[in-house]
Amino acid sequence: MISKNLISQIRLLHHKKHRDEQQFFIVEGVKSCIETLQSNFEVVHSFATNRLSETDINNSDIQFISEKEMERISCLSTAPEMLCIVKKPTCHLDDLDEEKPLLVLDAIRDPGNLGTIIRTADWFGFNQMLCSEDCVEFTNPKVIQATMGSFTRSKIVYAQLSDYLATQKKRTVYGLYMNGEPIQKQSFKPNDIIVVGSESHGISEAVAAHIHTKIEIPMFPHAGATPESLNAAMAAGIFMFCYRN
Amino acid sequence: MISKNLISQIRLLHHKKHRDEQQFFIVEGVKSCIETLQSNFEVVHSFATNRLSETDINNSDIQFISEKEMERISCLSTAPEMLCIVKKPTCHLDDLDEEKPLLVLDAIRDPGNLGTIIRTADWFGFNQMLCSEDCVEFTNPKVIQATMGSFTRSKIVYAQLSDYLATQKKRTVYGLYMNGEPIQKQSFKPNDIIVVGSESHGISEAVAAHIHTKIEIPMFPHAGATPESLNAAMAAGIFMFCYRN
Repeated sequence: MISKNLISQIRLLHHKKHRDEQQFFIVEGVKSCIETLQSNFEVVHSFATNRLSETDINNSDIQFISEKEMERISCLSTAPEMLCIVKKPTCHLDDLDEEKPLLVLDAIRDPGNLGTIIRTADWFGFNQMLCSEDCVEFTNPKVIQATMGSFTRSKIVYAQLSDYLATQKKRTVYGLYMNGEPIQKQSFKPNDIIVVGSESHGISEAVAAHIHTKIEIPMFPHAGATPESLNAAMAAGIFMFCYRN
Repeated sequence: MISKNLISQIRLLHHKKHRDEQQFFIVEGVKSCIETLQSNFEVVHSFATNRLSETDINNSDIQFISEKEMERISCLSTAPEMLCIVKKPTCHLDDLDEEKPLLVLDAIRDPGNLGTIIRTADWFGFNQMLCSEDCVEFTNPKVIQATMGSFTRSKIVYAQLSDYLATQKKRTVYGLYMNGEPIQKQSFKPNDIIVVGSESHGISEAVAAHIHTKIEIPMFPHAGATPESLNAAMAAGIFMFCYRN
């Protein structure tokens, strides 16, 4: 059983405005919830439907609710078996390790893209990311969903990009462009910075001023019409693969 | 102006059942519609809102309709400026060129994934794809949307996979797995076949029986918890990048 008041409060968290005000967000699905409970994130409520049993989850703080109640609090069209309310972490620029590679995201707006980037970054050991303030927030339910739990292992900082890049004079800053040096011919260093631009406008001018090397993912030659671009998450993923191999 | 009857007919095409029955599908957005009109696809209706002018589109067969009417026929939450009704092509196994590389998709269910795979395949010059019959149909509006027009340059065949693979004895069949030989160390041949498995179950047993070499996209070593997998579209994209570079 869950109070009407709590249901209303949780439903507010479906909206960015209230996530920002209350500094909480929603994680859904058994796998993601369990990973969140095992991480450093602060979980303030966890709910499971009666389809799960306490032994499935091995955590005594979980509140069991009906499937109907779960449907009411879930953001998904098919309600999950488990849902957590989690405190938004506060990551600052000081938290970024200057000895490690950094992925910089300039105005990534699509939640699916950001989620896929976070998931892929986790795979390739990029555990820190700097997002422009106009990127979609990573606590958006669709982002969290697409990360498949990888957000729990990522340090994600939102800040003004060009100010930060101006302080990183000793590191090489790469930008992914449609035209540049072929990505597979680069020799990366352990603390490189790579910038991925927005889905529709690429890398913004203010950020471009800090880029040392433009790189591209070569298109296979076409006889006729050609595709316009690669998806931003795909481009970021191929870059991270090249960086690690 | 568009008749009520035609509006109803088009709205039926939002659903798979009616796309299958009528053998038509919907393409939305100016760029995708123009690419479709310039392709070999048979466009039976094209609509544009009054925000576009005839000179923008340079095609006299376009019917101009109001934004309200466009909203009624569109599948999108934000109606596009252009929408086409297109005849479903019929691609058969005979249409697949055995001298070229072939991407085989085993039960890819997520429309965004299939769309991203088609878009990325176009970038890397993989213009033919074989999909299992339980893959999402590529004429699903979300797939078409995610291809960004690339479906017009792709031959997409739906068939029973293991029967076809059994006939391709002279080609090497690779499968993307969580554990296999590192992808970056492979030397591919111009007519290789690569199999990508489903988001949740990987490559099915019947198909696995035809795979010669299991390959993997290596995960960067993690100190603690690790991600479970890469997204299927991401894995397919990284494979195609490796194949071409």
